[in-house]
Formats: sequence, structure tokens, C-alpha cells
Amino acid sequence: MTTKSGTPKKSLMLFSGRAHPELAEEVSKHLNVGITPQSAYDFANGEIFVRFEESVRGCDAFVMQSACAPINQWIMEQLLMVDALKRASAKRITVIMPFYPYARQDKKHKGREPISARLIADLFKTAGADRIMTVDLHTAQIQGFFDGPVDHLFAQSLLAKYIKDNYPASNITVVSPDAGRTKLAEKWADDLGGVPIAFIHKTRDPLRPNEVVANRVVGEVEGRLCVVIDDMVDTGGTIAKAIHQLLDEGAADVVMAATHGVLSGPAKDRLSACGAKEVVFTNTLPIPDEKRFPGMTVLSIAPLLARAIQQVFEDGSVTSLFDGDA
Amino acid sequence: MTTKSGTPKKSLMLFSGRAHPELAEEVSKHLNVGITPQSAYDFANGEIFVRFEESVRGCDAFVMQSACAPINQWIMEQLLMVDALKRASAKRITVIMPFYPYARQDKKHKGREPISARLIADLFKTAGADRIMTVDLHTAQIQGFFDGPVDHLFAQSLLAKYIKDNYPASNITVVSPDAGRTKLAEKWADDLGGVPIAFIHKTRDPLRPNEVVANRVVGEVEGRLCVVIDDMVDTGGTIAKAIHQLLDEGAADVVMAATHGVLSGPAKDRLSACGAKEVVFTNTLPIPDEKRFPGMTVLSIAPLLARAIQQVFEDGSVTSLFDGDA
Amino acid sequence: MTTKSGTPKKSLMLFSGRAHPELAEEVSKHLNVGITPQSAYDFANGEIFVRFEESVRGCDAFVMQSACAPINQWIMEQLLMVDALKRASAKRITVIMPFYPYARQDKKHKGREPISARLIADLFKTAGADRIMTVDLHTAQIQGFFDGPVDHLFAQSLLAKYIKDNYPASNITVVSPDAGRTKLAEKWADDLGGVPIAFIHKTRDPLRPNEVVANRVVGEVEGRLCVVIDDMVDTGGTIAKAIHQLLDEGAADVVMAATHGVLSGPAKDRLSACGAKEVVFTNTLPIPDEKRFPGMTVLSIAPLLARAIQQVFEDGSVTSLFDGDA
Amino acid sequence: MTTKSGTPKKSLMLFSGRAHPELAEEVSKHLNVGITPQSAYDFANGEIFVRFEESVRGCDAFVMQSACAPINQWIMEQLLMVDALKRASAKRITVIMPFYPYARQDKKHKGREPISARLIADLFKTAGADRIMTVDLHTAQIQGFFDGPVDHLFAQSLLAKYIKDNYPASNITVVSPDAGRTKLAEKWADDLGGVPIAFIHKTRDPLRPNEVVANRVVGEVEGRLCVVIDDMVDTGGTIAKAIHQLLDEGAADVVMAATHGVLSGPAKDRLSACGAKEVVFTNTLPIPDEKRFPGMTVLSIAPLLARAIQQVFEDGSVTSLFDGDA
Amino acid sequence: MTTKSGTPKKSLMLFSGRAHPELAEEVSKHLNVGITPQSAYDFANGEIFVRFEESVRGCDAFVMQSACAPINQWIMEQLLMVDALKRASAKRITVIMPFYPYARQDKKHKGREPISARLIADLFKTAGADRIMTVDLHTAQIQGFFDGPVDHLFAQSLLAKYIKDNYPASNITVVSPDAGRTKLAEKWADDLGGVPIAFIHKTRDPLRPNEVVANRVVGEVEGRLCVVIDDMVDTGGTIAKAIHQLLDEGAADVVMAATHGVLSGPAKDRLSACGAKEVVFTNTLPIPDEKRFPGMTVLSIAPLLARAIQQVFEDGSVTSLFDGDA
Amino acid sequence: MTTKSGTPKKSLMLFSGRAHPELAEEVSKHLNVGITPQSAYDFANGEIFVRFEESVRGCDAFVMQSACAPINQWIMEQLLMVDALKRASAKRITVIMPFYPYARQDKKHKGREPISARLIADLFKTAGADRIMTVDLHTAQIQGFFDGPVDHLFAQSLLAKYIKDNYPASNITVVSPDAGRTKLAEKWADDLGGVPIAFIHKTRDPLRPNEVVANRVVGEVEGRLCVVIDDMVDTGGTIAKAIHQLLDEGAADVVMAATHGVLSGPAKDRLSACGAKEVVFTNTLPIPDEKRFPGMTVLSIAPLLARAIQQVFEDGSVTSLFDGDA
Repeated sequence: MTTKSGTPKKSLMLFSGRAHPELAEEVSKHLNVGITPQSAYDFANGEIFVRFEESVRGCDAFVMQSACAPINQWIMEQLLMVDALKRASAKRITVIMPFYPYARQDKKHKGREPISARLIADLFKTAGADRIMTVDLHTAQIQGFFDGPVDHLFAQSLLAKYIKDNYPASNITVVSPDAGRTKLAEKWADDLGGVPIAFIHKTRDPLRPNEVVANRVVGEVEGRLCVVIDDMVDTGGTIAKAIHQLLDEGAADVVMAATHGVLSGPAKDRLSACGAKEVVFTNTLPIPDEKRFPGMTVLSIAPLLARAIQQVFEDGSVTSLFDGDA
Repeated sequence: MTTKSGTPKKSLMLFSGRAHPELAEEVSKHLNVGITPQSAYDFANGEIFVRFEESVRGCDAFVMQSACAPINQWIMEQLLMVDALKRASAKRITVIMPFYPYARQDKKHKGREPISARLIADLFKTAGADRIMTVDLHTAQIQGFFDGPVDHLFAQSLLAKYIKDNYPASNITVVSPDAGRTKLAEKWADDLGGVPIAFIHKTRDPLRPNEVVANRVVGEVEGRLCVVIDDMVDTGGTIAKAIHQLLDEGAADVVMAATHGVLSGPAKDRLSACGAKEVVFTNTLPIPDEKRFPGMTVLSIAPLLARAIQQVFEDGSVTSLFDGDA
Repeated sequence: MTTKSGTPKKSLMLFSGRAHPELAEEVSKHLNVGITPQSAYDFANGEIFVRFEESVRGCDAFVMQSACAPINQWIMEQLLMVDALKRASAKRITVIMPFYPYARQDKKHKGREPISARLIADLFKTAGADRIMTVDLHTAQIQGFFDGPVDHLFAQSLLAKYIKDNYPASNITVVSPDAGRTKLAEKWADDLGGVPIAFIHKTRDPLRPNEVVANRVVGEVEGRLCVVIDDMVDTGGTIAKAIHQLLDEGAADVVMAATHGVLSGPAKDRLSACGAKEVVFTNTLPIPDEKRFPGMTVLSIAPLLARAIQQVFEDGSVTSLFDGDA
Repeated sequence: MTTKSGTPKKSLMLFSGRAHPELAEEVSKHLNVGITPQSAYDFANGEIFVRFEESVRGCDAFVMQSACAPINQWIMEQLLMVDALKRASAKRITVIMPFYPYARQDKKHKGREPISARLIADLFKTAGADRIMTVDLHTAQIQGFFDGPVDHLFAQSLLAKYIKDNYPASNITVVSPDAGRTKLAEKWADDLGGVPIAFIHKTRDPLRPNEVVANRVVGEVEGRLCVVIDDMVDTGGTIAKAIHQLLDEGAADVVMAATHGVLSGPAKDRLSACGAKEVVFTNTLPIPDEKRFPGMTVLSIAPLLARAIQQVFEDGSVTSLFDGDA
Repeated sequence: MTTKSGTPKKSLMLFSGRAHPELAEEVSKHLNVGITPQSAYDFANGEIFVRFEESVRGCDAFVMQSACAPINQWIMEQLLMVDALKRASAKRITVIMPFYPYARQDKKHKGREPISARLIADLFKTAGADRIMTVDLHTAQIQGFFDGPVDHLFAQSLLAKYIKDNYPASNITVVSPDAGRTKLAEKWADDLGGVPIAFIHKTRDPLRPNEVVANRVVGEVEGRLCVVIDDMVDTGGTIAKAIHQLLDEGAADVVMAATHGVLSGPAKDRLSACGAKEVVFTNTLPIPDEKRFPGMTVLSIAPLLARAIQQVFEDGSVTSLFDGDA
Repeated sequence: MTTKSGTPKKSLMLFSGRAHPELAEEVSKHLNVGITPQSAYDFANGEIFVRFEESVRGCDAFVMQSACAPINQWIMEQLLMVDALKRASAKRITVIMPFYPYARQDKKHKGREPISARLIADLFKTAGADRIMTVDLHTAQIQGFFDGPVDHLFAQSLLAKYIKDNYPASNITVVSPDAGRTKLAEKWADDLGGVPIAFIHKTRDPLRPNEVVANRVVGEVEGRLCVVIDDMVDTGGTIAKAIHQLLDEGAADVVMAATHGVLSGPAKDRLSACGAKEVVFTNTLPIPDEKRFPGMTVLSIAPLLARAIQQVFEDGSVTSLFDGDA
């Protein structure tokens, strides 16, 4: 007998970095799969150590990490986890980045800059990632930065459904806070049943190109319920200014919806004071209590992630979950 | 004596595929460097053969090809030229694609599609390209699809200067023909001295998502000279509809400016009949006489390409030529 | 519970480009597996779009395309299909090229040429191909151009069996139309039971090296049934001249057999007028009615391809199908 | 029906080069899997030919070879076997090198040297190896030279158990024959229950840096049973000198234990005459009768290898077998 | 004229991340080359942005960063700088890491761990690094983790010279604080003219393997001036314990010398209280005033780095600077 | 000043393995460049050590080795030399293999074999080779196995010139010893001014396919001076049989010419007894005195290699030297 036969097995294992354990716990419950226990700690000089407490040979590994602050720390932890999985003979490694880090640096704005979002894709490929799963990329082109399958999930439908369930569509105008998100606003307008859109036009003085001279609202907003949309809110400056201006120009009310609540520095103060009736985020990034305020709603992305993981594990197809890959 | 010393030399060589020899000739004159003679022909079954007639050892090779119809034929010819240069010991190979092919397929719009623009970058990398030089990418993120330097030249300034020289800026509104180009319109508006912008909002019926129900102009256009801008015009359908609508809504006049004149099928008929006072293109793609009509202006991109090639050869920097790399 | 187990499945999916749907249909019937529905069309400027209509996650994909004219178009279509499969999480991708394109350019004949056949292998590797299946390569060394498994099928036995079934072997001489195919003629001679062989020697004037001065038949052909063999016939010039000469030198009759009927330009006229009693091809390339004539026989390669696909899918071994990999 | 389903199978196949067939036979018996028959011979000029006699499609291949003299010959044979497996569609290829060749050249000792141990890892990766299995690496860092899983087995426990079973631990001092193995001695000391350690300090004259001036024993050895340990013994010079010195300094007795018995040239003479009571090796390398002498014990590594192969095949975990990967 | 000739130029440019600007300034002065001005700052969410203020086309780039806390932040900054240089057409990129980060995780100590030091090498290769320059690696094998030239500089001679200049060699014993550094101690002993060595043997209880039961000094230290050496000192625990023990066992005096002063957490307190007469470091890592104390000496590595950069730029050889590459 | 400028230098360095030092010496003299001194020796267990005695930073390295027995030993030595050059910062590495090893295994003859000639190309690429220089490849397709420039030199003209100078062309028939070299015979026939050709047809019994039943001469040889040509002669069996048969069939005289004199085992006896008037080789492989006999002529390849190296160093073009790359 020159071959020994066996029956192949498939096993799904879920891994979580230390950045956002709550989201991983939620996904774990939806999947009914525990998070694989691991040691993960920082040495005194900040170097990270990780070790899995169970065998991962041959498993279909899903490695979750949210890219919140300290963002480079958590990126490195996820890279080390992928390296450890590769060297311990995991069969397939899917990196789950609910918020894709460095997505805003997806091109050179001027000369001699990195294309950081491409670098991120390359770093994970090098460490051993076979696939990436992510939510609402800053630009969809980032999918093409990775040389392999990218499951690009849509949280927009989650947000849009929430708006539809809570506000009458008839009076809504979807507003993009700058010219670059107008296309996204158009998608929202279709989702909400064909409502009008508007955007904020920022003008610059040709002699001082980095300085915004004035914001002009382009489109009709007077008396309308303005739904200001974006993919992410970082310090909240642009979005708060946009909301002020909409109210100044006679908007009846303003609601804001964005997938990724980065919410750095003054974000909480700005958003809570900007006059919006409600601001809605998902939990792709952790939003701890100290960043929350009345009028903020946080929807959970966990059911969507869990369903996507299940489909990937079973080679199933749920096109509605995905933008671009099913 | 165990080493033999020598003085290194640098030599620039210019190569051209068969797609757009006129542009290569123009660049050659501006550079004062002849195009390297080559044999290039098709075998009876369509397979392409190329052979350079002079030694290319150690040269700094610049390989021009324009991606016009038959587009896959010309892509393959350029790939074969790059392979031949690599195997014949060219020192560095810069692929010049004035119009980046397959740029519109820069992401998966729905599942199970290729990301063709990334594939193009990978194919040229595989063949042996060290660098890419291109003009006004459909989306700037495509720079990140190539793992190496991309010289991304700006033809927009060429076009904007032409408009400024020929039309009074005071009455201009820059118009994006759809939501996705609003950001580009904003850049134009800055270039023209802070003029207003508008765009065409296409609404879709949620039950028939691929069908546009209506176009709405968002922004003020009545009595204005509308400058409709885009990166490329293929069959001219979208742009002609946009111009009609602007005129219907009271625009004083319409001028159109776009970098890449693909001008397939009905484009000439549509553009010549759309009511625009003037349509302006560059010659990144060949625009033969039979595609031209009164009211069409074609600006030459050759001086810009020649200056860029010279800078790359000399390791110089002319940031104004480039978007993102100098 | 920290792992979720499952039973792995295997599924074979068959894909076909637009070059030769009839062959794919035939293979599909033999395999009893439908061709996966897809959208595939050309944009106005010739760029190709492809999208699969069903989920391909985890499948064992076999992607058929025949490299007929417009050959570069069909190569690009197959590359895009492979890219789309890779990004949509196909488990394994086998590219089926019944006729390997650019196989004649498998080396540099003189300096500064590409090695196009190697480039083709590299392009498919880059796009995401794991394996290649092909038939009767121009030179067997092309297998080594791909860094992975190549299933090299033999159609020669199909052709040889046809000759044996239809002509008496006792009087046959196998003739190679030029010096480079003499080894192939020797294989045929063995297959036909040890018959003699001959070949056509082309002499060149040392002062005009690219010009053939004269053809000489080397070997005995007078009164014999000459079976002229080759791997492919393109314009038919060489083969028709060879047949004329054989008849001139007293051959009793001539039959021609070749795997790949490229049949460009004047091929039909030349072959139908060359005096051969019968010419035999396979359908690795489409041979439409307008290229056919009385005296031409086309054998189907589909059963061989179908059996090979089945074996690859099942990890079986049918050495007799393959040259070099089972 | 557009997909054909099947049930995946798994099959383990064992392959052996010609260097050490006895070890492969032993492993084969423990695994209850025959060695796949193959042709392997040298052409007259020394080029090696290999061909497997059975289909290997889809198998989980384990390829054994021991790196004994002529070492480069056997390395090349194993590389060719891996290449043949890759091209014949083996599913996964694990290279088993019980003794990792060129492990001593794991760094540049001075300038302009190769890092041969890294090169070995790269060569096997290039040929198609997915994984490496090896025993007691000269330095554990060599694991990191391979970009993939390395199963690093521990033979030290085998040797330590033998010592414990045959000698009273109470009087043992573990001795490293040079400063570089002191860490290994410490591990042994722990394994033997906390016994003392010592090492031989070699001093060099600063003016003649490559020449050892004197050996000093650092640590207490008088009246002790000295267990001199090492990972490998090549010509036996260092180890024999160490043993002499230990006896000179009053050691009661000396036993030597090392994993890899390279035993080149004068090794047998030196070891048999050095005064050690017993020398113990494993059979990672063949130790033919002519290299053996009374007082030499050879333990078999085959059970350990067989268990490890079984675990890898079944995706099991036996951490105790491995250093660093389970 | 089909080629344009030119004279190639070579230009050295020096770049510095934000981790240790003082060291870069020192190197800059020794080289007489300014540090290229750049923008480098953190976005609110911690993402880093970098942009060079001068053209870097064709330059020979040397990119300095010290891996101090927050270490992952500074690693990412250096990766982004390399990516930006690659995309801006730098000709060659040498990454200077005076302290190689994650060097201690150069192997898997137990199963399912990353090999972080290899990952670091891979990440820099992926970003675009052509070469690495580093000082006193934790283990020399790390050189082999990078697929390209590594200039491994020796700071040990700097430290040893300092000891020789300040202490009489006659009474010195070099002491390794654990078994793993004994080889390094031997090198020091040679450098100091053939002095004796000793080391601290840590014993573990076999039932509680991670716990050190006792430290034993192996070798003669009574009445000696003990020079305790190491490559790095992190929290100082091991080293302080070693020094206490040496003094307990009658050492006349203790001096400590190590290349890399990581000096995390309690290091300052431990070192200043451990009884050592002097502790000596280099400035491969920043040692700010608040980490210093009387009795600490910091030698500058800048002259060594500057000479090495100069040699690399000029293709010169100064073997004495390097361990393993000149 | 933020850049330091310099003048780039170019230096050619020549390296030689231990296989064929005489050829390297000859080339060295023609080039007027010494061979870089190196240490190269075998450890007791056969592992090879190499170290260059001079700095190689930035040099243009040409690394000669002839693939004679023990062939795997010399391949490994050359790989180690390339690795050492790469790690010591050589600027460009050209591997010179006058006889390409494993060239006969350039395809799978049957299933489950390696493609060893491709593996050789990959191994050298992996070690760090930028280019390959070789002479008269067994099949020209092997050029395509290397992903980079291959300088394929022609020794055939050397041999043909010798024949022309020493034998009257009028009576020559060029004879291929088997069907596979007929194309080569045709090239020779052209070189000698249009003489006739013939070849030996080997017939096999279909029931015993590996056994040659009979040899038949195809073509006219009676009364002719037969020049039997081949690329290499290994044991001389085929060639000696061919010569016997030619003499049996009435050839006036036989001369044999082949580039590579492998000359293993019985070759000398067979060739000296085969009845040929003269046998001519080049010294791509060493032909020591004990393999020589009266009637053997050995032409030196050194002038050709030296000229090619000079051209490559100077980026010159001498197409006549090369087949396929200049």
C-alpha cells in the first residue's frame, strides 16, 4: 500500500486582536464559534508577542482586528497573528478589517507621498493573508490593491434601512459633505426611493490653494430633512461645518449617517454641538461610552460580518451582503 | 589587476508601437531623439511579431503605445515590446500609456467581475516594466495598482488654460456630467478662479436599478456658460444628454473639455449635434480626420510627454507636470 | 467550542470564452456539466467586460478559450476571466488552451525579440492560473515556461488512429515538411508500425540567408503513400509546397494530418488545390464551414479534453492521455 | 446543471531519495504506508533523473532525504523530486530533512560569504516545497529562513531519556564543548533534573585570531560524570579534544550525546580513542557499520518522524514532538 | 539620432524618521549631508503621513529610524517612507535600523508563535527596501532573514575599546548574564586580550519550566573586575540580578556594557541601584536625560554609521566596520 | 546641502568556480582582468564554503563555472558564489555556464518527471543571478526558462569554420545522428555553402517502445565525406553507432563535430575506435589529457566568451556572437 487515505475535514476558527474584543465577541455569538484563546501582550519596549493556545493546523482562519488608535500597534498585532497562523499551518487566512486602515491615503495627492492603502494590502499579503474582508471602503478601488479575493461588505444598507424606518422619506435630501462623496449620495438617494441630493462646494483661492475660502451648498435644502452621509467621521470638522451651513441655509432638520466612527479628538464635542437631530454610526470601530452622547445611535455590524464569514467558510453566495464579490 | 574599470553611460531610447505613430513622432521631435526602428507585424493568424533593429543594451527605454481600437491588440504589442527589451538587457523600461486601458473597470461594480485596471498593471509588471507614465487617470487610485513608480501627468491644466484663454471666466459654471466627476469639477472651478459648479443627478427606480429614470441638474446654470468636463468621452451618450439638458435649463452656452477622445461609434454624430459651442480634447488617443468636425479642437499632449520623459531620464523634478510623483 | 467543523465539498465548473463556443459545448456534453453562464461583451472601444452569473466560490474552475483570430482579443478575455475567478474565490483555476498561442515564438530567432510563448505563460500565472491544459504543443519545452502543472494532451494518437483506420500502413512514408519536424515524423512512423520517414530539406544561399533556394526531398518517397504531418497549418504555404514536391518526385498519393487548423488567409485555396487526397485536422481551433472543402476531415478533440478534465478533477491518472503529466 | 460535485479525498504518499533508504523504510513501517516506487539514477555525467512510478495527483507528499555525502548530489536529487511532484499536481509537498544541510553557514562569519542555510531554504521554496520538517537545527533561527511552516522536531528528549535511563543523574555535569552550545547545555541540565553545567572556553591570541591558544574548562567537572552534548559531530576534533581535557581535569567519566552523526574522515578514530565511556547518536544520517565501534549507540529517529508525519497529515497537534510548531 | 546620451550622476540623500532625530543629526554632520526635509505627522486617528519636500528621483537613499517606543509607530513610519521613496523613483533604498526591532523573536520558542524578526525583514522588502544596515544584531542569523545585502556593523569594538581605555585588563573576567550570550563573552574575552569568562546558569524546576529556581555563577569571579556584557538591556531585571549575584560571590567590581539601551520601565532604577561601578551603552536608541543617571556612559554610534554610509555610497570596503559584509 | 554627489564607476570582476579553472584563466587573459581571488573548499562532509578575498561592492560580476562531474557539486558551488555576491552588494551578476547543466531534461518525456533545465534557471534566479551567458543550448527554448536576459553564444560557427578550413566542402554531407538534430544539420549545411544533409532514423517496435530496433540512414551518404554533428557527446554510444553505420553504407570518410565534450565513461574508447577521421570539440567542458586521443581536436571557446563579456560590460552589440540577444 503506497498511499494512506483519509477524509478531509474543514474547521472554522475565529481569532481576535486586542483592539475591539467586543465586536469579536458579538460575531462569535452569531457564528456560535468561540474565539481561539491566545496570549497577546506587549513587551516593556512595546514589541508585541502573540501565541495561540490551541492547534490551528489546517483550519480556515478568520482574524479580526479593528484599526482604532493606537492604529499602528493594532496593525502590527494583526500582521504578527497572520505570520503565526501561516507558520503554524493554517490552511487559509482571511484578514477581517471592518475599517480598512490608511484608506484615505489611497493615492498620491502630491508628489513624493506613499500610497499607504496599497502598502497595507502588500504588508498583509507578505505576512500570509489569503483573503481580506472589509466594510465600506473609502474608495472601492482599494479592493484592487490586494492580489486576491476581497469581500467588500456593505454597511450602507444597514444605515439606510435605519433612516427609512425612522424618518419619512418624502422630505429627505441626501447631502454629501464635499464634492468627493456626491456619488455616494446618489446611491443613498436611490436607496431612499429617489430623493434629491445636494453637496457642499468648497472654493479655494488660487493663490492659497490649501485654504478653503468658502462653502457653498449646491442643490436645494431649504425646508428639507437633510441626511448628511459619509463613509467615516474622524475629527468631525468637515461634517460639523456642513451641518451648520445646512441649518443656516434653512434645512428643516439634519441627520448624519456614516459607517466608521473614528471620532478622534474634538469629534464628540463638535458632533454633539452641531445641531444635528441624530448621528448614526456602526461599530466597525469601538465607540466607548466616553465618546457617546445623547442623539448618537450605534448599529451593530456583527450580524453582517458573521453571515459573511459563514458564507466564505461554506463557499456560499449571498450577493446582497457584498459589493463586488460573491 | 582583478577589476576592469569603465565609465558608465546613459542613453535614452524611444520606442513606439503601431497604434498612434503620429504622437510618437511629435514626442520624438520635441525630445530630439529618433524612434528606434523596429520590425512589427502581424502573422496571418493575428500573432504579433516585434524585433528592434538596433542594440538596446543598457538603454533607458521609453515605450509608447496608445490604447485605441483594436485595444487588446495594441496592449499585447506593448507587452511583447517590453518583454523583448527586458530580454535584450535594457536597463530600465518605462511604459507610456497616454490613455490607461481598462481604467473604467478599476473595481468590481458587482460580484464576480475582474478588476481589469489592476490586471493591466500586473501584466506590464510581469512583462518587465519598471515604471509607468500616463495621463489623467480615470481615478487616481489606479496609481496604486502598479508596484513601482507611476508618473501621472496632468492634461487638465492644458485644457483649463485653453478655456481661460478663449472664454471669459466671469460667467462660467463648471458642470460634471454625473455625480462621480463632481470632485474633478471642483478642481476645474479652482483652476478657473473660483467659479461655481453643478452636476447632473441621475435618479433610478429602485425596482429597475440599471435604468436611469431622470436627470436633474443640481446647481445654478441658467444664463451661464457651462463648461462640461470629463476625463474621457467614449460613445458620447452621457455627455450629449448632459449638454441637451443644460441648454434646456437655460444655459447661455456649453463648451465641453475632456482629456481622452475615445470617440467610439456614434460619438461624432452625437457631439456634433449636441448644441455645444466647442468640444476640446487632447491627442492622447489618435483622433483621425473622419472623427473630427467643425467645433472640435484637439490640443497636443506631446510637449508635456516629452518634458516628462526628459525629466525622468535626467532624474529631474518638475512637480508642475505631475500629479503625485516628482 | 472554538472551532466549527464542516465537510468539504468539491465542485467542477466549466467556463468558456467567446472564441469557440462549439468546442466548449461539446466538452460540456461529454462531461455532463453545463457551462457557467456569464456576461461577456465588448465596450464600444473594444475593452472586454466579463461577469459570471453564478457563485464560483470554492469551485475547481476549468476555463476554455481557443486562440483563433482575433487572437489577442481572446487571450485578453481569458486573462480577464481568470482574474475574475481569482477575485471571486475559485479554489483552483485550470486554463485550457487547446491551441497554445504564440507557440512559434518559443525562442529568440535573432537578437532583440520577445519570447512570446514564455510571456503568455507568465501572463496567465499573473492573472491567477494554477494549471494549464493544452494539446500538442509546437515544442514540448513550452511546458517548462509555466511554473506549475501543465497537462499536455496528445492529439497525435487520434490522428494516427484515423490514418491507420483509413489507409494501409504497408505503403506509407511519413514526411516532415521541414527539418524541424523530423522527430515528430519519427514518432508517427513508430505509431504506424515502423514505416519509413522522409523530410524536405530547404537550402538557403549564404548571401541571402532568409531566402529558400530550393527544396530537396531527403528519403524515399517514390510510389509511396506520403503522410505529411505537422502540428499546425497556418497559411498552408510550406505544406502545400511540400505536397507538390512529393507528387513531383513520384509519390503515389499524399495525405496530410495536423492537429491545429489555423488556416489563415490563402490556406483553404492552397490546401484544396495542392493535390492531397485528404487533409485531416482536429477542432482545437474553430474551422467554420467557409474554411472547409471536400477532402478535409475534422476530428473532434472534445472527448479527449473531457476525459482529461474529469481526471484532473478526480485526481486520477490516465497516462495515455497525457504527454508528461499524469 | 452547471456544477459537478464530488467528495474530496486525502492521501498521504511517502517518497525517498537514495541517500538513506533504511531510515525511509523504518518510517514507512511505522506509518504503514509504502514508499512510492520511483526511478532514480545518475546519467553518465552525473545528472540525476527521477520519475515516480505511480500517479501523485492530489496527494499529500512527504519527501525524505538525508543530507550525507555526497551532500550536494542528494540535495539536488531532493530538489528534482520536489519539482517533479509540483509539476505532477501533488497537493502539498513537505520536504523532510532530518539533518538540515549547510546549517553551520547560517550567517556570514566574515564579509563576502554566502548564507548557505538561507539559500537552501530558498532553493526548496523555488522548487515547490510547501513545508519543511527537520530535526534539531544547528540554530533555531534557521526556521525563519523558510517562508512557510517548519516542523522542527526535538531529538534531544530522545537522547536525554536514554542518558537518564542509563546513568544516575545525581553525579552528572552537562558540558558544552564550546561557548556557543552553552544554552543547549542549560536545556539538557533542566531535562536531567537541574544538574550543573560547564563549557570549554577557547582563547585566541589577538594577533593570530583564527588560532585557538588554549582550552579552559569553565565550571566544576572534577569527579563528575560529564555528559558532553552537541547537535552534530563532523570530524570529531573539537569533541575529542573536549573529552580529553575533561578527563585531564579529573572528570570521573565522560559520555557524549549528539543528534547528528556526520562522522566524516577521522571521526571514528578520534571518537573511539577519546576515552569516552559511550557516544550516542541518532540515525538522522546513515551511520554504516564501518563507521561504528564498540561504545557507540545509535537511537532511531524513525518513530518520531512517523508520528510527526501522521500529525501533519491529519492536522493534529502533538506539541511535545515539536519545537515551535504544532 | 536614435539615442540621447547623458552622464549618469550619483547622489546620496539622508532621511530620518521622527524617532531619534538627534542621531540622524549627528550622522548628517559626520557625512556633511543635510537631512532631506519632509513633512511627517500623525492624523487624529494615529495614521501617519509623510511627504518629502525635495525631489528624490535617482538618489541613493539612506533612511534612518530608531526602533524605540512607540515601536510599532516608528516601524510603520519607516515603511511608509520606503514606500514613498520607491514610488518617487529613488534608485536604491537602504534602511538603517541601528536597533533591529523584534530581534528577540527570531524563532518560535514554542508552537504557534510568529517569527517576528523575519516578518520585519519581509515587510521592509515588500515596501521597497534594497538593503538593510543595522548594528549588533541579537543573533547574527537575522542577516539571513533579509533577501539582499545586510550591512551588519559592530559596536562591540567601540565598547571594548572604551573598557580597555578605562580599566586594567589584567584583572577582568567577562561575564555573560545568561547561557545564551556565552559566545559573545568569548569574543569580548579575545578582544580584551585573552581574559577569562564566566556566565550565570539559570536552573529551572522540571515541574514548573517557566520559573527560574536559582542562578549559579559558572566560572571564577571572586576578586575580579567583572565586565558583564549583553547586546541589549530592556527592563534591566536579568542584568541587575546578575550583577547582584556577582557582587555576592565576591566580585571586586562590576562594569556593564551593552550596545542597545532599550531601558524600559524600571530599568533606570534597577541599574542605578544594582551596585555596578559603571554602565556603558551606545546611542543606537535615544537615551533621554530622564533615563540617565551618574555612572551611565553613552557612546555615540554616529561616526560608525556615517563611515558605513559613505562606504556603501562609494562602493568601498572597510571590513573592520562590518561583521559579514564588505 | 541635502545631497552629496559622486561620479559613478563601473567595474568588471571575473569569478571562477573550481570546476574548470583553465578556461577561466584563458578568458581572464583575453579580457586582461584577473580572476578575483577566493577561498573555496569542501568541509569534511562535502558542504562547500566560498569567500571572496576582495570587496565586490557595486561590481559587474561574471561568474564562470563549467558543469562537469561532479556536476551537482559544481552547480551548488556556483549558486553559493551568486548568493555571496548578492549579499555583498554586487551590482549585477551574470552567471556563465558554457555548458548548461541538465539541458537534456528540458521537458517531461513521460509523466511525473521534473523539468530539470527549468529548475536550474529558477535556482540561479533565486540565488540572485541577473543574467545568464551560455553556449549552444541543447534546445534554444531553454532561453525562455530564465526570466531575464540570456546571452546565447554560438560555437557552431567556430566549429564550421574549422571544418571549412580543413576539408573541401564540395563532397560534404552533413549528418544528424538522430531525427531530433536534423534542424541543426540544416543550419550546418547552410554554413558550409548549401551541402546535402542526412540523418539516422531509429525505428522502434511498438510492443517494446524503449528499444531501438534498427537504424536507417535517410539521405545520400555513399562516397561522401560525412560531417556528423551534435551539440554534445556524453558516452558516445549514439554517435559511434551512427558513424559505423555511415561507413557501412559507403561513406568515404566521417568527421564529427560537437560543441560540448562531456565524454563520460566509455566515450574515449568508443570515439577513438569508431572509424572517424577526426573528432572536434570545444573546451566548454574540461577535456583532460586522459580523455584525449590522436584524432581529437579541441578548439578554445575562451576568445568568444571574453568578447561577449566585454560587450555585456560595455553595453555593446556584436550580434554575430549571439543567437538571440544583442
